[in-house]
Amino acid sequence: MKLYSYYRSSCSYRVRIALALKEIDYDYVAINLLDGDQASAHYREINPLKLVPALELAPGEVIGQSLALCEWLEETHPEPPLYPTAPLERARVRAMVTTVCSEIQPLCNMGVNNYLVSQHDATTESIQRWQAHWMERGFVAVESALAESGTEFCFGSTPGMGDIFLVPQVYNARRFKVSLDAYPNIQRVVDACNKHPAFSTAAPEQQPDYPG
Amino acid sequence: MKLYSYYRSSCSYRVRIALALKEIDYDYVAINLLDGDQASAHYREINPLKLVPALELAPGEVIGQSLALCEWLEETHPEPPLYPTAPLERARVRAMVTTVCSEIQPLCNMGVNNYLVSQHDATTESIQRWQAHWMERGFVAVESALAESGTEFCFGSTPGMGDIFLVPQVYNARRFKVSLDAYPNIQRVVDACNKHPAFSTAAPEQQPDYPG
Repeated sequence: MKLYSYYRSSCSYRVRIALALKEIDYDYVAINLLDGDQASAHYREINPLKLVPALELAPGEVIGQSLALCEWLEETHPEPPLYPTAPLERARVRAMVTTVCSEIQPLCNMGVNNYLVSQHDATTESIQRWQAHWMERGFVAVESALAESGTEFCFGSTPGMGDIFLVPQVYNARRFKVSLDAYPNIQRVVDACNKHPAFSTAAPEQQPDYPG
Repeated sequence: MKLYSYYRSSCSYRVRIALALKEIDYDYVAINLLDGDQASAHYREINPLKLVPALELAPGEVIGQSLALCEWLEETHPEPPLYPTAPLERARVRAMVTTVCSEIQPLCNMGVNNYLVSQHDATTESIQRWQAHWMERGFVAVESALAESGTEFCFGSTPGMGDIFLVPQVYNARRFKVSLDAYPNIQRVVDACNKHPAFSTAAPEQQPDYPG
């Protein structure tokens, strides 16, 4: 398998954690989003959506979108499981995952920042407020879910899908200097994750395209 | 089961379609987002996230987030199936679903519009351009997936998860006068869906809180 990834893309980071938890080997292909590699003719043939991550299983067999990819990994490589067994518990994990991937990340990324700058005269300060506003709305929901679960990782004593989505989002929050002081459970769980070897391996600074 | 819903919320609309396809009876509880019902003390006890939809299975057993809800329905009420059987095909459906629920809807909704108006001096025209920009980016990806599948519904001869997410997004696009001329496959599939009884039942104008 080949993973097309950018070290700092939080969606790529999610898939790297899932692959590491499942102990799946893959080739890393760096796509530099700042240089526009994602829009090159070569990459558009692999992923017409011009997005990372993408997982190439064989020539022409490509899966895009990190959530679809993580669900595919769980279905095809069930050990260790990333979801609990009971449907209601699975729904609680997926609700938290959706908070990150539908309420925070889509609003807090380079494409949206660029549009705000070009079309809405956004400044460094207003972008900072924008990021903080949407991250905080989502983190309040995640914090409440984690306070209720009260486990070492998001939803249990081993890392799973919630942790896979939370850790890259918190990495982004720190990058954009969004305070995490109001979210002790988020900080506690992310600290536990970052001590786990799968999360260390998947971290941005461990990737071949990390500028160092 | 009780479904907390707002007739015009595209995320509520998704769950209404899924419930109708599964032929599951439920009580409809209207939450008027314009009146702020979602932030009332009563509703916050049911869903602390202050969002619709939410499905109440029993007092205290509530599932929020439409994607988590649809996956839960599929796991607990498997007939008729909303996904194909093969993992790679399921991944293709989930990638399309994610395009709608992580790349279009989160950017094109009332909360984001309100923030743009209050913090970025957005006008009716700039909001219209904003909506068109993000909807078009997502629709190009969906159109390409549907052109490849070439089936009556998004991914097969019966409606499934792709259709559940596509139809409410197209309803929103029409509401905001975003042109669909460039997307013949999207138009064709949505026309087929709208002739299906589950989709008619779930339509905004059929809900008890439709202002008429």
